[in-house]
Amino acid sequence: MSITDPARTLATQLSETPPGSRVTLMGHVHRRRELAKVSFLILRDRSGLAQIVLRPEDLSAEGLPGEETVIRVTGTATANAHAPGGVELTSPEIEPLSEPARTPVVELWRPVLDASLPTVLDNAAVTWRHPAQRAKWELAAASLRGFRRTLDAAGFTEVHTPKLVDAVTESGANVFPVDYFGRTAYLAQSPQFFKQQLVGVFERVYEVGPVFRAEPHDTVRHLAEYVSLDAELGFIRDHRDVLTLLHQVLVGMLEGIRAESGEALDRLDVALPAIPDEIPVIHFLDALKLVGAPEDEPDLAPAHERALGEWAREKHGSDVLAVEGYPMRKRPFYTHPQPDDSRWSNSFDLIFRGLELVTGGQRLHRYSDYIAAIEGRGESPDAYAAYLSAFEHGMPPHGGFAIGLERWLSRLIEASNIREVTLFPRDLHRLTP
Amino acid sequence: MSITDPARTLATQLSETPPGSRVTLMGHVHRRRELAKVSFLILRDRSGLAQIVLRPEDLSAEGLPGEETVIRVTGTATANAHAPGGVELTSPEIEPLSEPARTPVVELWRPVLDASLPTVLDNAAVTWRHPAQRAKWELAAASLRGFRRTLDAAGFTEVHTPKLVDAVTESGANVFPVDYFGRTAYLAQSPQFFKQQLVGVFERVYEVGPVFRAEPHDTVRHLAEYVSLDAELGFIRDHRDVLTLLHQVLVGMLEGIRAESGEALDRLDVALPAIPDEIPVIHFLDALKLVGAPEDEPDLAPAHERALGEWAREKHGSDVLAVEGYPMRKRPFYTHPQPDDSRWSNSFDLIFRGLELVTGGQRLHRYSDYIAAIEGRGESPDAYAAYLSAFEHGMPPHGGFAIGLERWLSRLIEASNIREVTLFPRDLHRLTP
Repeated sequence: MSITDPARTLATQLSETPPGSRVTLMGHVHRRRELAKVSFLILRDRSGLAQIVLRPEDLSAEGLPGEETVIRVTGTATANAHAPGGVELTSPEIEPLSEPARTPVVELWRPVLDASLPTVLDNAAVTWRHPAQRAKWELAAASLRGFRRTLDAAGFTEVHTPKLVDAVTESGANVFPVDYFGRTAYLAQSPQFFKQQLVGVFERVYEVGPVFRAEPHDTVRHLAEYVSLDAELGFIRDHRDVLTLLHQVLVGMLEGIRAESGEALDRLDVALPAIPDEIPVIHFLDALKLVGAPEDEPDLAPAHERALGEWAREKHGSDVLAVEGYPMRKRPFYTHPQPDDSRWSNSFDLIFRGLELVTGGQRLHRYSDYIAAIEGRGESPDAYAAYLSAFEHGMPPHGGFAIGLERWLSRLIEASNIREVTLFPRDLHRLTP
Repeated sequence: MSITDPARTLATQLSETPPGSRVTLMGHVHRRRELAKVSFLILRDRSGLAQIVLRPEDLSAEGLPGEETVIRVTGTATANAHAPGGVELTSPEIEPLSEPARTPVVELWRPVLDASLPTVLDNAAVTWRHPAQRAKWELAAASLRGFRRTLDAAGFTEVHTPKLVDAVTESGANVFPVDYFGRTAYLAQSPQFFKQQLVGVFERVYEVGPVFRAEPHDTVRHLAEYVSLDAELGFIRDHRDVLTLLHQVLVGMLEGIRAESGEALDRLDVALPAIPDEIPVIHFLDALKLVGAPEDEPDLAPAHERALGEWAREKHGSDVLAVEGYPMRKRPFYTHPQPDDSRWSNSFDLIFRGLELVTGGQRLHRYSDYIAAIEGRGESPDAYAAYLSAFEHGMPPHGGFAIGLERWLSRLIEASNIREVTLFPRDLHRLTP
């Protein structure tokens, strides 16, 4: 079986292969170079690259397979300081495993993928094969492992909640309607209502899954579908406990990357963010003052977030900053108010390198507070009956947060467009590939 | 911070608490019992149950909090062989953290949840709090960890692919249409096309995520939305390599359960399935003979699967059985035919305790084979352009499988209806809670 196939050597294992032994590699032809007296194939597999040297006597009548063709090659491990890993394959026998591949629209063997974003996205199945492109997603996968590892160790339970819902979760806007057996359902904008209900069951829950936003805006930081990393936990004192958890999770995600993706980091030349032992926190009102915005401003504009990011960097040496106390009128109805002044909330945004990355906070947990909050919006609690039944039947003080995976990744590698780090982005204009 | 809050003791930690010390527990009132001279509260937190004893002098004017009310209680750890864990809390001071809870429609403190399935499902936020109910999902969470651990260790990369797609993946039927910015998108029936394309990038990929089937049938084993555990890998010889991987994954899932969910297993009285060192394999044609079905039968009926399950159990002492070689005409177009007889396929179903749990197999990997297969169905390859570009640009021989999480869980605990193990099921009739 290939998982443990003793007959196959990975490209990066070649450096540990005793010189002179015959080994078999399998992968795509990454590059073909034909010189006058010698030819080279660079083979690419999931581990990396390996060099194959062909003398005229090694060439078959069909010639050398072209780039992206998939081959099996058996050859002699031979030391060569100029080959990747210091060992190359000589006297190779090559067997194609695919038909001759069509030449890709971009040259995957060049160190930098030289193509416009639309070309990269339109040809995703091929362009993700570029080692630098692939390295981006490796950081995503390592981040996910770090996220789960941190929460598993803290007694959290993984949950999976429905993406088809009967009503709109957070606000009336930006939802996708679905024809659900003849009636209208909606795609969930977040697992918010479900994860709260499940705090009453498991106390600490997390979910990694898609969320859907019918964003009518075409921006470099919004997607119509993205991966949300949600956590929610009970028996907190206030939103500061949620922020402490978030801090541990971010540290865990970076540890995941450091431990497993050193090569991807090097390839992308990424400097990991500085996250101090305590995340700096500033109140919304102080944040407005700091950026010189009027006191009655209801939200932070992107320029404000960037200025705050600069400030956190300079003043605290930190790539992250929490802004707490956002105005209640701008937060969803389940937000817990600041106990000493109910104009403000026990919620926060985490700003990561000048861009909002996470929204979190304490939620209401008393049934009567929910009834008042919903009626205060002129709505009927009946519309929320299933959700409210959790609170009617006793819920602990609780809170949580949601991290957008692609946004995390985008800021991590300082991409100029979130689509650069999304496997198959979905937006106002794009539904393929 | 509550994650490491030194001021809080979990219910199951009480047994290790030195007698006489004052500790604080937090949780729901699981049961209240008022006797003539003494009262008891059973507190439930994420770890388990703890007993609190109240003498008349411990009672406040408001009386005892009712079931499901959330409390913080500080008391003296006191040995009592009859209490859970051998230690109970005496001389308690109780502080409610929620308002008095409404009495649940079902008695959560009874060892067995005594309610009809509709009642259980309609009141999911509350009924999942029942320890036996909750234990079911704990097996799901442990299975997921085992799934990922096995694949992470084998060099797989986790991916997340779009659930909004522009065309139907597998067949024209049973898809949910979505109003996508004024045009029609569909909810993905599987990540099949994407995971194959990503084999060209990462060689070995897995995804855990929702899939959507507009199943017009109301059965005990179908859902409109479920969690699919998908894996796909390159450089296989044939479907038998996929089956070997599946075997390792199932063993890993059971190890996850054994290692982390012993208590849940005990509570549910689950006998873990017998999975032998090699999964027994029978060809479709031999399976038909074995169950006495006509040789031209295109598929196995549920009764056939049950009979085969019995046979595997009796003949091989196995709870799993792979049926390979399903007729090509019943398999999707990307299925690889059996090399020596193209009426049959290099695909399999895994039957787990008499029910199909997994579909897997080898896929086509040559571009020209795809063109022929699609044209053979009377369709135009143009409709599959983005998908086909992966094959046009070279793909290794590959294959994979998909496990339905809820179906796995359902057969694992031998539930009579898949809805019993689904957090918030979605079906022909049900879109709430």
